[in-house]
Amino acid sequence: MKAYEIQGELRLDQVALTERPTPVPGPNQVLVRIRAVSLNARDLGVIGGFYAPDLPLPFVPASDGVGEVVETGDRVSRFRIGERVSGIFAQQWLSGEPLPAYSSSTLGSPLPGVLAEYAVFDEDGLVAVPAYLSDAEAAALPCAGVTAWHAIVSEGAVKAGDTVVVQGTGGVSLFALQFAKLHGAVVIVTSSSDAKLERAIALGADYGINYRDQPDWSQAVLARTDGRGADHVLDLGGASTLNQSIAAVRFGGRVSVVGILSGMQANAVHLIAIIQKKIRLQGINVGSREMFEAMNRALAASGLKPVIDREFPFEQAVDALRYLEKGAHFGKIVITVP
Amino acid sequence: MKAYEIQGELRLDQVALTERPTPVPGPNQVLVRIRAVSLNARDLGVIGGFYAPDLPLPFVPASDGVGEVVETGDRVSRFRIGERVSGIFAQQWLSGEPLPAYSSSTLGSPLPGVLAEYAVFDEDGLVAVPAYLSDAEAAALPCAGVTAWHAIVSEGAVKAGDTVVVQGTGGVSLFALQFAKLHGAVVIVTSSSDAKLERAIALGADYGINYRDQPDWSQAVLARTDGRGADHVLDLGGASTLNQSIAAVRFGGRVSVVGILSGMQANAVHLIAIIQKKIRLQGINVGSREMFEAMNRALAASGLKPVIDREFPFEQAVDALRYLEKGAHFGKIVITVP
Amino acid sequence: MKAYEIQGELRLDQVALTERPTPVPGPNQVLVRIRAVSLNARDLGVIGGFYAPDLPLPFVPASDGVGEVVETGDRVSRFRIGERVSGIFAQQWLSGEPLPAYSSSTLGSPLPGVLAEYAVFDEDGLVAVPAYLSDAEAAALPCAGVTAWHAIVSEGAVKAGDTVVVQGTGGVSLFALQFAKLHGAVVIVTSSSDAKLERAIALGADYGINYRDQPDWSQAVLARTDGRGADHVLDLGGASTLNQSIAAVRFGGRVSVVGILSGMQANAVHLIAIIQKKIRLQGINVGSREMFEAMNRALAASGLKPVIDREFPFEQAVDALRYLEKGAHFGKIVITVP
Amino acid sequence: MKAYEIQGELRLDQVALTERPTPVPGPNQVLVRIRAVSLNARDLGVIGGFYAPDLPLPFVPASDGVGEVVETGDRVSRFRIGERVSGIFAQQWLSGEPLPAYSSSTLGSPLPGVLAEYAVFDEDGLVAVPAYLSDAEAAALPCAGVTAWHAIVSEGAVKAGDTVVVQGTGGVSLFALQFAKLHGAVVIVTSSSDAKLERAIALGADYGINYRDQPDWSQAVLARTDGRGADHVLDLGGASTLNQSIAAVRFGGRVSVVGILSGMQANAVHLIAIIQKKIRLQGINVGSREMFEAMNRALAASGLKPVIDREFPFEQAVDALRYLEKGAHFGKIVITVP
Repeated sequence: MKAYEIQGELRLDQVALTERPTPVPGPNQVLVRIRAVSLNARDLGVIGGFYAPDLPLPFVPASDGVGEVVETGDRVSRFRIGERVSGIFAQQWLSGEPLPAYSSSTLGSPLPGVLAEYAVFDEDGLVAVPAYLSDAEAAALPCAGVTAWHAIVSEGAVKAGDTVVVQGTGGVSLFALQFAKLHGAVVIVTSSSDAKLERAIALGADYGINYRDQPDWSQAVLARTDGRGADHVLDLGGASTLNQSIAAVRFGGRVSVVGILSGMQANAVHLIAIIQKKIRLQGINVGSREMFEAMNRALAASGLKPVIDREFPFEQAVDALRYLEKGAHFGKIVITVP
Repeated sequence: MKAYEIQGELRLDQVALTERPTPVPGPNQVLVRIRAVSLNARDLGVIGGFYAPDLPLPFVPASDGVGEVVETGDRVSRFRIGERVSGIFAQQWLSGEPLPAYSSSTLGSPLPGVLAEYAVFDEDGLVAVPAYLSDAEAAALPCAGVTAWHAIVSEGAVKAGDTVVVQGTGGVSLFALQFAKLHGAVVIVTSSSDAKLERAIALGADYGINYRDQPDWSQAVLARTDGRGADHVLDLGGASTLNQSIAAVRFGGRVSVVGILSGMQANAVHLIAIIQKKIRLQGINVGSREMFEAMNRALAASGLKPVIDREFPFEQAVDALRYLEKGAHFGKIVITVP
Repeated sequence: MKAYEIQGELRLDQVALTERPTPVPGPNQVLVRIRAVSLNARDLGVIGGFYAPDLPLPFVPASDGVGEVVETGDRVSRFRIGERVSGIFAQQWLSGEPLPAYSSSTLGSPLPGVLAEYAVFDEDGLVAVPAYLSDAEAAALPCAGVTAWHAIVSEGAVKAGDTVVVQGTGGVSLFALQFAKLHGAVVIVTSSSDAKLERAIALGADYGINYRDQPDWSQAVLARTDGRGADHVLDLGGASTLNQSIAAVRFGGRVSVVGILSGMQANAVHLIAIIQKKIRLQGINVGSREMFEAMNRALAASGLKPVIDREFPFEQAVDALRYLEKGAHFGKIVITVP
Repeated sequence: MKAYEIQGELRLDQVALTERPTPVPGPNQVLVRIRAVSLNARDLGVIGGFYAPDLPLPFVPASDGVGEVVETGDRVSRFRIGERVSGIFAQQWLSGEPLPAYSSSTLGSPLPGVLAEYAVFDEDGLVAVPAYLSDAEAAALPCAGVTAWHAIVSEGAVKAGDTVVVQGTGGVSLFALQFAKLHGAVVIVTSSSDAKLERAIALGADYGINYRDQPDWSQAVLARTDGRGADHVLDLGGASTLNQSIAAVRFGGRVSVVGILSGMQANAVHLIAIIQKKIRLQGINVGSREMFEAMNRALAASGLKPVIDREFPFEQAVDALRYLEKGAHFGKIVITVP
């Protein structure tokens, strides 16, 4: 089969298309013909050696793929040939709280990724995907969709009338925007681009804040909520945005920390405000199969469409990665596999 | 002021328009000029002597009213003259779990009702009502709206993709339908009337079941949910519908018992199914001020319109009660006060 | 190996000791040398044909066993030879909410039981048992212990200062008593025997009510709680005790329905009280592996000892079943396997 | 009446005993003859001008007092003369989530404190205290007890078998230790003093870590929990201890931030670990009346005794404050009022 590999070194220019043996499913496994792969910031981190400097090479990157079941092992009972499925990010996280062991079961490092014509999965590591979605749309779900569902619904328990602040307009943020709106919440989006804010509002957001113009954007959130503050802030910036998130949230409110775009550590965190306002800071790292399945029921019921920024053909996968690196996208970047 | 009283005996034909002294607010109280009153089945129960056979007469009936603050006691700080407010049903239930004492603080029995030109309330027993609602729409909220919010949102924690079954098309049921849809749920409505089912579908319901045609309607729910069952059934029938609700709900699901139209006790309740399916049966009795306020935020954010079946002028309040008694309404019956 | 079978018909006198081939573990399976088996009322129901009238015979009964791993399949990773383990009741219920399919994965019907020298289990269907427990004590856990943990802790979220009412002194009830006390709750026990009440008090219960002397025992609960009512009633009687449980529980309280000793249906259930008091009626049917493991951590931390009424040697297993049938026990009945 | 005041400036040497008019209760108020006052670190912060630099002087300090009702306003219904009561810290936080307005209703700044022979309270701002406690013991509850209950029980939902890490041996920490043990948890205490660790173990702690000897004390927690980590860490150090708390907690675990002994901001916070381990960081700031009452039920049921380090007579209140400042105490410092 054709597949992309990170080859000699952990660098983006080492990602190349090659031939590999098509994998063979074991008794509890399923062989999937991949139809679309979506990219995440994490993929660049893996390729760049940020996540696992000692990743054995060559290595097939990318964690999020959707495809068709083409072969099943003897003991497989959950899926049949012809069904359309997607791998779950942490293959062992089926339900409940995460366990440390699940960290070593994530696709696209340390487990092999899906940027290939075929991939095998344990049958427990797959979900069926809603029929109404295109392959590209379905490929957007495993990391970005599930992360947003976990933060906004499973943990966040969003309800109508809540005010939710979403930072930025990447994949997770737009899913969060959509899921919050789907539950009747008021959504405020922050971005450095007025054009992206306009698109976010077209997608359903109630209000946009350009944080270039208003670096102290928590003030705008307080003004917009009559001084009450937001019920929930989805923080993707990490170090550089956390204090604004803390300032923007109401007494008894919640900040979900789902990204660390600006560094692994945060300085000068306002602990006193966290205490005085009884804030909950909740780390979120993708989610379980149970969450994925609940999200799929919500998608099927609502017909909600994931936002695809751009689709690249399989041969241009490296271009897609470089496009992701630029950070100018609005929604998900997808590679289609012929 | 003009007011309706139950006069010599607890019977509907004893309800009459009369003159009473306008009440005077105490230091923590607020005088409200009533603009609209909505009726609940409970009002007929009070008038008929079902709830409190020894209710001291004459007595002003009805619990749900909306109006304008026209006078405030010395120590009042939560409201100002001119604000539009509504009384909360159990005047002392502000937040948290109910206490037995709250039962004796409900409007329209044992506390005096609101079917009058003026009423006084402790300031803690009022909420501001969303500006976009007409007086009639706002009057629909205190019992029917809050009961539905409590069942579907506060306790039910409905989320997108859930399937919710709502019995009937009275006030509580239609609010429940609307609140469930507002959170992205799939809603199935039962009724004995195809015409009402059509109206429910026009209001957003996904599917209607005529229980005259299908007395074993739980089968239709199971069929519609691929055998999984509903996540939540809002049971308003009580004795006669409970086993169908139990049969219609999924493993680990929830039946909210919010009415007892067919009697105070239930026979032949399928305990074994409750155990085997790990069902939660949750009694719901209106709700707290905190729930009312959360609901109001959801209303203001969404612009959701309560369903008013019919408005009667103040002089025809007894006709309105008789109309309620017939049970042919779809949504709330409101009396407007000039 | 030696094993007991229900032979020609579903009757207790058809249970007999026999020889069967020792089972061979598949690749994901574990062979366990059974050391102790505890009995549950359900076992009599299975043997008597109450649960599954068409159970294929001969059939090895009993669901709760503990033993030593003596052989492991090729792909087994969770257990090693020599570890002491117990099967979980519903072999497929690992965590989260129950699914209908799990009902067909319960040991001792429809899956084969453990009243034998050896049994095989999928590795996922086992838990390690705390080292400080004897085999007999550990055998008490799978149904009775997990049911009580599920009701009192996982769902009941008992906390210090709560009042918990426990009906009777069977296996589930005594575990519930112990778990509630372990969390600082006040425990009231009901029984028809003063002698058993004394033993319950010796075990930690705060108060005993003889329901023969006080059939309206909810009054005694109300008196004991200054009129407030119990926070939680564990109802094992079902039909005949449910209304007393409803009367005994506080506003906003909880009744866990865990048994139906007096019949599968309940008559004249006080729905109006369920509504007015905002009662939660929660069906409980054993529990998940995750609950079993959480319970085991609590046991290991506390050194709590399950109450064993009597141990029978393997040859007297039928006597043990007959002794269970009499219903005079206090705690669990265990059969030890040499 | 006699009372202590902060007089000319916000400094400890400006606290002096003086005469003030005995306050007179309004219609909804209660006059309390104070019998004991407990001190909190916050009191030093108020006296030193750290909390409110513009506090109008003279000002009566201290928030935690217990005493006897000696006079009641006309409209008071919750308490009678002779009852023993305690003020709640945030006088307006009765139940539910905190609101910003409650911050301005805290005793001992901005509201007058209780270091005096008499104090008035709105009747809603009081709770009855358990009879079995001495005045000194009861005085320990309002801040330290309620904070610990809030963190460990109301939010923490501690259960038997959980591992809870408690930092230090001040008032909040020892209550947390006791409440966690009362629910069957395993408790690990950190301290810089082996002598204090011994006393903590005598009080019920399972294990002590001297963080002077083991600055990387999270490693000791991991070792003690077989690598799993603690379920809950109560963090009182803030800036200097937070990363150790994050490292010590399990996947899916909880860190309650209840103090900021080492500064209002935290540097180099390990956000990446918060995300990867799905940690919940929960700010805790005392608690509501509802929590106080639930704690009182737990106390009354268990007979648990607050740990009093030392009692000072009223005339030596300034010595008591200086003793608190030294930080060598184990448990609460109390001033008795004759």
